[in-house]
Amino acid sequence: MEAEKNISEKKIQELYDKLKKDAELAGYYLNPTVDFTKQLVRSLIINQMRYGYQACPCRLASGKKEDDLDIICPCDYRDADILDYGACYCGLYVSEKILKGEIQLQSIPERRPPEEQRKKAKTTTQKISEPLPYPVWRCKVCGYLCARESPPEICPICKAKKERFERFI
Amino acid sequence: MEAEKNISEKKIQELYDKLKKDAELAGYYLNPTVDFTKQLVRSLIINQMRYGYQACPCRLASGKKEDDLDIICPCDYRDADILDYGACYCGLYVSEKILKGEIQLQSIPERRPPEEQRKKAKTTTQKISEPLPYPVWRCKVCGYLCARESPPEICPICKAKKERFERFI
Amino acid sequence: MEAEKNISEKKIQELYDKLKKDAELAGYYLNPTVDFTKQLVRSLIINQMRYGYQACPCRLASGKKEDDLDIICPCDYRDADILDYGACYCGLYVSEKILKGEIQLQSIPERRPPEEQRKKAKTTTQKISEPLPYPVWRCKVCGYLCARESPPEICPICKAKKERFERFI
Repeated sequence: MEAEKNISEKKIQELYDKLKKDAELAGYYLNPTVDFTKQLVRSLIINQMRYGYQACPCRLASGKKEDDLDIICPCDYRDADILDYGACYCGLYVSEKILKGEIQLQSIPERRPPEEQRKKAKTTTQKISEPLPYPVWRCKVCGYLCARESPPEICPICKAKKERFERFI
Repeated sequence: MEAEKNISEKKIQELYDKLKKDAELAGYYLNPTVDFTKQLVRSLIINQMRYGYQACPCRLASGKKEDDLDIICPCDYRDADILDYGACYCGLYVSEKILKGEIQLQSIPERRPPEEQRKKAKTTTQKISEPLPYPVWRCKVCGYLCARESPPEICPICKAKKERFERFI
Repeated sequence: MEAEKNISEKKIQELYDKLKKDAELAGYYLNPTVDFTKQLVRSLIINQMRYGYQACPCRLASGKKEDDLDIICPCDYRDADILDYGACYCGLYVSEKILKGEIQLQSIPERRPPEEQRKKAKTTTQKISEPLPYPVWRCKVCGYLCARESPPEICPICKAKKERFERFI
């Protein structure tokens, strides 16, 4: 526990910067209240030390990684919570509207299902209705998929050129 | 209209920089004739002020967002025009060949269908021919899909680790 | 051949920087032994001059681009080799574990199939078992596909907003 007290500001700043950069490249935002956000980042570092993975700072981790995969940050519930409430359960990730102060952060109910339900497979009813409106292309280098009339000039993921794409569907 | 005359160079530069960065991360290029490109960026800012969305600077917007979704920049026709002509309808986005001066910009015919046709659903004939050559993996955090023998080490979109992927197809 | 001797350090550094940046954005790593890596980068530049494409530095290129597409760097076999051995055939791209020195680089057997087999189509048995657990969304601007309850706020590839997504499957 001693080590947990001695987490340096530098280490927190490094993880903060990394999370911020990754978030913004993918269209997410960190909570703009930097002090609050750094507290959460600090908790992520502590969880990394305790459990060996960055369990959600606002939930009780079991300590068994395979049971906690869904709450490793960013958790499986982040996007649905940002959609419905403008922020993830912790308030670490927020929507553009929260970022700009257009809507206010509120308390967010726990979306994670109880343990028993988590173990059941999700069953839904998405049917594939043929024909599809566009062909699907696959990058042979990295597996990226997109649906367009023809492949992109360059793979947005691995930067391979158009000639490396193949028809997938 | 007064406000439209007073768009600062700083504001234009900011949007120019943002569009350029986003473009290049995904394998697109802004027109290298910077003065011309900044005129288009200025028009985007004007359209944002007029309509509340960045309608294409070279097309007449209806002012009803739901009817103009396909011409919000980057428009739905950009990629097909870059493929066929090396540039989008406006000349804002260009191909690598135009960028390097290997081919010249030409006049680009309007690809947007007339209003009536836009309202009809696209019907095509892409059949799913099973079996598919690779399994499709889904990132449980962000929904990213890719087709590979096994999931990537890290999700290229949200940076979640391989263990957060599930078999999708 | 004279030109090949005169490849400047600046040119090598430029390609090195580009490959490193592209790699890291997508979750890959260049070999941390910089001198070794720069030798490979230099070979890529030589192959570009010789063949007109960046054939793998560690394989014999045929000189016919259409026969060598699978070994243009990054090659079609990189990801499978990183998965199994922590590095691509050349050692240019490595896994995080190699990067951190947790596992050691070893000799990697050639995974590229013999010429005859390459020309045969891959046949596998991935069946689409309906129903799918999530709907698939398509960005109308760039064709990005993802499987989620609802589209993302912003397209991670082209930055188009959520309203530009359509239901694909």
